[in-house]
Amino acid sequence: MKIIIAPDSFKGTLSSSRICDIIANVALEQFPGCTAVKLPIADGGEGSVDCFLGCLPGEKIWITVKNLFMEDMQTFYGFLRGDIAVIEMAACAGLPLAGSRKNPLSATTYGVGQLMLDAIHRGAKKIIVGLGGSATNDGACGAAAACGVRFLNRAGHHFIPVGGTLKDIDKIDISGLDTAFKGIEITAMCDVDNPMYGPNGAAFVFGQQKGASEKDIEWLDCGLRHLCKTIQEDIGMDFSEVPGAGAAGAMGAGMTAFFGAKPRSGIETILDRVKFDDLLAGAHWVITGEGRFDSQSLQGKVVSGIARRAMKHEVPVIVIAGGAETIPNMYAEGISAVFSINRLPEDFSISRHKSEENLSITVENVFRLIHAAGMVGRGEGMAWPE
Amino acid sequence: MKIIIAPDSFKGTLSSSRICDIIANVALEQFPGCTAVKLPIADGGEGSVDCFLGCLPGEKIWITVKNLFMEDMQTFYGFLRGDIAVIEMAACAGLPLAGSRKNPLSATTYGVGQLMLDAIHRGAKKIIVGLGGSATNDGACGAAAACGVRFLNRAGHHFIPVGGTLKDIDKIDISGLDTAFKGIEITAMCDVDNPMYGPNGAAFVFGQQKGASEKDIEWLDCGLRHLCKTIQEDIGMDFSEVPGAGAAGAMGAGMTAFFGAKPRSGIETILDRVKFDDLLAGAHWVITGEGRFDSQSLQGKVVSGIARRAMKHEVPVIVIAGGAETIPNMYAEGISAVFSINRLPEDFSISRHKSEENLSITVENVFRLIHAAGMVGRGEGMAWPE
Repeated sequence: MKIIIAPDSFKGTLSSSRICDIIANVALEQFPGCTAVKLPIADGGEGSVDCFLGCLPGEKIWITVKNLFMEDMQTFYGFLRGDIAVIEMAACAGLPLAGSRKNPLSATTYGVGQLMLDAIHRGAKKIIVGLGGSATNDGACGAAAACGVRFLNRAGHHFIPVGGTLKDIDKIDISGLDTAFKGIEITAMCDVDNPMYGPNGAAFVFGQQKGASEKDIEWLDCGLRHLCKTIQEDIGMDFSEVPGAGAAGAMGAGMTAFFGAKPRSGIETILDRVKFDDLLAGAHWVITGEGRFDSQSLQGKVVSGIARRAMKHEVPVIVIAGGAETIPNMYAEGISAVFSINRLPEDFSISRHKSEENLSITVENVFRLIHAAGMVGRGEGMAWPE
Repeated sequence: MKIIIAPDSFKGTLSSSRICDIIANVALEQFPGCTAVKLPIADGGEGSVDCFLGCLPGEKIWITVKNLFMEDMQTFYGFLRGDIAVIEMAACAGLPLAGSRKNPLSATTYGVGQLMLDAIHRGAKKIIVGLGGSATNDGACGAAAACGVRFLNRAGHHFIPVGGTLKDIDKIDISGLDTAFKGIEITAMCDVDNPMYGPNGAAFVFGQQKGASEKDIEWLDCGLRHLCKTIQEDIGMDFSEVPGAGAAGAMGAGMTAFFGAKPRSGIETILDRVKFDDLLAGAHWVITGEGRFDSQSLQGKVVSGIARRAMKHEVPVIVIAGGAETIPNMYAEGISAVFSINRLPEDFSISRHKSEENLSITVENVFRLIHAAGMVGRGEGMAWPE
């Protein structure tokens, strides 16, 4: 039996690679000799580099870049065979790195630009940047400044704009972009549809979780609106109504405007790269899952991306979730069954400490049921009773 | 496909017959044309009469008897074809009937005796009495008094002993027992192993939930110890170390001492009566379950009783539970898989209101997984991959 194990992380409790290990161990116990293919999935946020390096040959490069506060930090990106670099912006501009200093008015993506430059100098021809888990709202201006793009204020002085100073940008001069970027193909992995500004924009939807007050949010939104106008004037691209431009504090817009990046769904990018369709050939089961299976799960997220491809290959998909809401049409999307790992009626404050055990026992029972179903099928002379 | 649905109730949320209906509906949706056999199980407590009448031909007899407080009440027992009466003591001596008047010092089982007498006068040759869910601690003295057994105090006056006055019994005269009992076979369904008195006895283990204070419990325990001694002297039976004698406020001991009842496991009695082994022939799945699957579940309770028989017939058993603890060796006891109905990490105070929905969606996913497993089996040329 061939089982593909491709879960997202259970946010706050289990990493996707830990989930893969747990499920694979149970699979090998219940079906000795089975092939358990582990694909720990991360679709742009924290863990994305490890996800690629877990599935594809390559190495983790550690370097010193600027963090959210323009202080030096040690961080990493992935360099895959085939001269492809994988960068997660969360590695130097992620929310967990902010600690008690969360402030999207001042946080910068400068280090992300440094990571890209280093990758190119190391020979990367393609760069995949995961937009996810950011603490910033600078529209990629910091990253662009790190790579030579010049932002000038009304006095003609250049500066590194942050969320709170976007309104000071009078001119953007992209002619300064490091020539090393010439011919480099950049993909921005992104899974949100938010526009750059406005009520559904980056500041209003994500500002609060990044530490912005109501007043801050209005200021950030004005800044993004101004950045959008300036990009239109100086670069000739209009992001005012582009879905996804607001991803990661408008990193979506900036990556395209300053670096010519092409936005793409994170899960599709990963599934293409790992040749998921080839893996599905001959597979009997796909096990996927995420912390909370809800209506968002079927909208371009890990589970739906996996289910859609598995359905094409007629491989049944089992979803294991920390919490499982009932979603209309989930079965029509290629999902055979959804199980939650909660063994007892307990609040998350209690159950979160039992995630490993609950996951393991739930998956064990799923495999045991599959095993029993096989015995029943056999007993019926191999003809499955309808 | 033939599916036997034989759950215990989920105490406090769903009756076993409601559970049967929900599971059967899902089964028929997922496997159109399947045979869904509904066996709502109750093993001695509330619902036992309905359980028998739901599986076997018979009628519900309504009569007036004395309640816990010697007041008239309308209640029922079951009269099955074959002159078998089924009585649940909870029908007139149950804890829910006590309401705010819970008091095992004064509560009586008098009505249980009246129910037995009525059944015999109606022609019953066998009586099955379910001991479970009682509010009493009278050692069946009330029931015995209703049927002619005379309890005398030191002054030679006869009286109807209750929990608080067991110590006043000086002599027991069973010669007064209604002659109608002659030749009647009585079974006491009982699933606890507690002795009559002492630290694991009826008063100390069950007194508190019946409303007894610590002082009351000591008094009740002394009373039971005295009753035990008096039974030994006047009837010649020694219950001092008999497991199960303490069931239902020592109803276990009294039923045997005064009525010659034979104690038997509730689940075994029911499974025998409904000819469960015959039903298992040709069955593909057994679905059982209970509110809380824990270490007690494998000790002579509904789930273990069902699993043991199903295992003999090689029919896989799926347990669906409100809460599912992980029990060592549960799979060795004939259980194929255990699923909890909790779809989200929620406290019971929240999830209890979603029991129907959670049960339905969980069972749907179990059946969908079985269905998918069947498709996989088929794709493999009917040979199940090991």
